Amino acid sequence: MLNFEDYYALVQLYAEYTGALDQGEWDRWPEFFVDACLYKIVPRENHEQQLPLALLQLESRAMLEDRVYSIKEALFYAPYYQRHIVDNPLVRRVDGDVWEVEANYAVLRTKHNQLSDIYNTGRYFDRIRKTTQGLKFESKLCVFDSELIPNSIIFPI
Amino acid sequence: MLNFEDYYALVQLYAEYTGALDQGEWDRWPEFFVDACLYKIVPRENHEQQLPLALLQLESRAMLEDRVYSIKEALFYAPYYQRHIVDNPLVRRVDGDVWEVEANYAVLRTKHNQLSDIYNTGRYFDRIRKTTQGLKFESKLCVFDSELIPNSIIFPI
Amino acid sequence: MLNFEDYYALVQLYAEYTGALDQGEWDRWPEFFVDACLYKIVPRENHEQQLPLALLQLESRAMLEDRVYSIKEALFYAPYYQRHIVDNPLVRRVDGDVWEVEANYAVLRTKHNQLSDIYNTGRYFDRIRKTTQGLKFESKLCVFDSELIPNSIIFPI
Repeated sequence: MLNFEDYYALVQLYAEYTGALDQGEWDRWPEFFVDACLYKIVPRENHEQQLPLALLQLESRAMLEDRVYSIKEALFYAPYYQRHIVDNPLVRRVDGDVWEVEANYAVLRTKHNQLSDIYNTGRYFDRIRKTTQGLKFESKLCVFDSELIPNSIIFPI
Repeated sequence: MLNFEDYYALVQLYAEYTGALDQGEWDRWPEFFVDACLYKIVPRENHEQQLPLALLQLESRAMLEDRVYSIKEALFYAPYYQRHIVDNPLVRRVDGDVWEVEANYAVLRTKHNQLSDIYNTGRYFDRIRKTTQGLKFESKLCVFDSELIPNSIIFPI
Repeated sequence: MLNFEDYYALVQLYAEYTGALDQGEWDRWPEFFVDACLYKIVPRENHEQQLPLALLQLESRAMLEDRVYSIKEALFYAPYYQRHIVDNPLVRRVDGDVWEVEANYAVLRTKHNQLSDIYNTGRYFDRIRKTTQGLKFESKLCVFDSELIPNSIIFPI
């Protein structure tokens, strides 16, 4: 099991992550990852059948930075707010400085002049590394429940 | 109050529980309970008026195992995914190895080719025992908010 | 960072708070605050543009007690249940006995004979003081995402 200092850092990592995303601080997003990282958004059916299709797959921190550039400068989309609620993280495995952690998540969305709805629900399968700069994601896999692929997932999950 | 080791075990118990259910690992469900357990799903109105009606009442681990068998082999239902999000557990009482814990929960549901919706919200009223095999539920009472009883609650809450 | 005892008290504070509200224990609500407190519910757009408009602004514990009186005795409204789910609290700043804490929240609502819906989502920006009576809110700012102001927020968020 983790000691308190590590556990505290872990729950703060998730709280920092969702806070940064939901407040629209896109530039902070890549900073949660190591350089040689993997970020994927995958439908649950494909994940469970081990099919390779991903809705989004980014294979380095530089690609995450590109994605941030797209969000801020290139993509056209109707603006919306996100609000993540993440369940208590489950520490599946502690292997020295590398931890495997899973957590259920729900992303609620609010469009201009509309009521909030459920945008995306699923489970994070994360690999976290304890570095001298604090905890960082080595990989973050977002496995979402809906087979009805949203026409656009613009912002990170 | 709980010490850190016990608190960590508690939040991991909830995270394990919701993870097992939402990933469809039904066989693991009874393992979260002691043999002489009580599992109930009760509408809030009945709970607050102390009326006995429950939507589901199982009075031993063997009955939970029967329920798992029904889910896997006997019941007919349209498949759906569940996704639990549980609030921080409130430790109401610590009496040696028996703890009374409450927590708000929401279960989001995703049916095939449909958007996710709110399936069930409510509050757990749990009695947890610290055993040599780890923490186990002695009783788990799921008090749900909606008076509109869903036509079928198939999977455990 | 907080030590375990303080962290435990913090998560229990949030769990107590949401539990008291969602079980309708309105008289307990002001007890979560110091006497000279501030409670505000603010739309996100106004908050981000630093516009002063608030949906509700209460500037002392006595005003919270008045609000409780209104809920119990004076306001007319169709009854509904609330169910808060709060993300892991982010400890933004620890300044001795005063802590700045943020947390995403979602409030799900269930009206009589209706399905549950998403009532309000947003983020708490809280200032918490460690007192001899335990942790108390000095200020609680509820910044909600929806521009579509609900026709009535009756109960505290």
